[in-house]
Amino acid sequence: MAAKKIAVVIGSLRKDSLNRKFAHEVIALAPPSLAFEIVEIGELALYNQDLEENGATAPQAWTHFRQRIKDVDGVLFFTPEYNRSVPSPLKNAIDVGSRPYGSSVWSGKPAAIISMSPGATGGSAPTTICASRWCSSTCRCCSSRKPISAAPPTCSDRTAS
Amino acid sequence: MAAKKIAVVIGSLRKDSLNRKFAHEVIALAPPSLAFEIVEIGELALYNQDLEENGATAPQAWTHFRQRIKDVDGVLFFTPEYNRSVPSPLKNAIDVGSRPYGSSVWSGKPAAIISMSPGATGGSAPTTICASRWCSSTCRCCSSRKPISAAPPTCSDRTAS
Repeated sequence: MAAKKIAVVIGSLRKDSLNRKFAHEVIALAPPSLAFEIVEIGELALYNQDLEENGATAPQAWTHFRQRIKDVDGVLFFTPEYNRSVPSPLKNAIDVGSRPYGSSVWSGKPAAIISMSPGATGGSAPTTICASRWCSSTCRCCSSRKPISAAPPTCSDRTAS
Repeated sequence: MAAKKIAVVIGSLRKDSLNRKFAHEVIALAPPSLAFEIVEIGELALYNQDLEENGATAPQAWTHFRQRIKDVDGVLFFTPEYNRSVPSPLKNAIDVGSRPYGSSVWSGKPAAIISMSPGATGGSAPTTICASRWCSSTCRCCSSRKPISAAPPTCSDRTAS
């Protein structure tokens, strides 16, 4: 059976992001049945409906991102918490992917959310918000159970570049 | 007494945004004691801590935005709801304004949130989220009471440009 294609979307754009490092650790542990591919979101223009309406052509980065999400079997989000919610780059990716109206690439897509933080409960807001508000209403999201580890694992630096 | 300076931050970048139109209607009704000024957020680069750390100079648009918020006596947000939360441009403005760590321009700033939607309850999520999660923990936010009008008022087109 062909491996399931899983998009990995990382909420922080920071090069040394703990969530990015952890994403790479998880990817390295993946069984042959899962083919992870990181889908970057830093080049997506801020969502503005005007950019693809009334004859305007959607930014290429939007079109490319939407197609990549359409093409996968599921999505795994790794994200920190910024101001009691997901970081703006991830919120932007969510908004871009959800439009045009009626054509959301998230609809029915299996998804799960992992949040890492140096703080003991620093990642609880994104998982709560995504699971309860957005993700559960669009994606087929994983359980909303939130195991919180008191300390993040030590990640190697294989992903720092 | 000098008029209080109030920054108006509009969550949607859409030219014909209902919230933008309503913001202009409110501005037109302002008493002399209030001096509203729209602070645009569409030119802010997606928040990435790397852009202002380790010798990097913060994008000029970030610095300008932060200074404008610092200079006002309060902030009035007008925002629609995107995917059960605030639109990504507004989340980005919140994130940009909140950094660098310990220097948030929102800290202690009086603020209020207005959300307009063609749907009867379409704006309830941003006001709920902002009031309960972010704004109340940083700004001195207005009451979380949420009067919901079943139909938005008719706005003039004075603000459509």
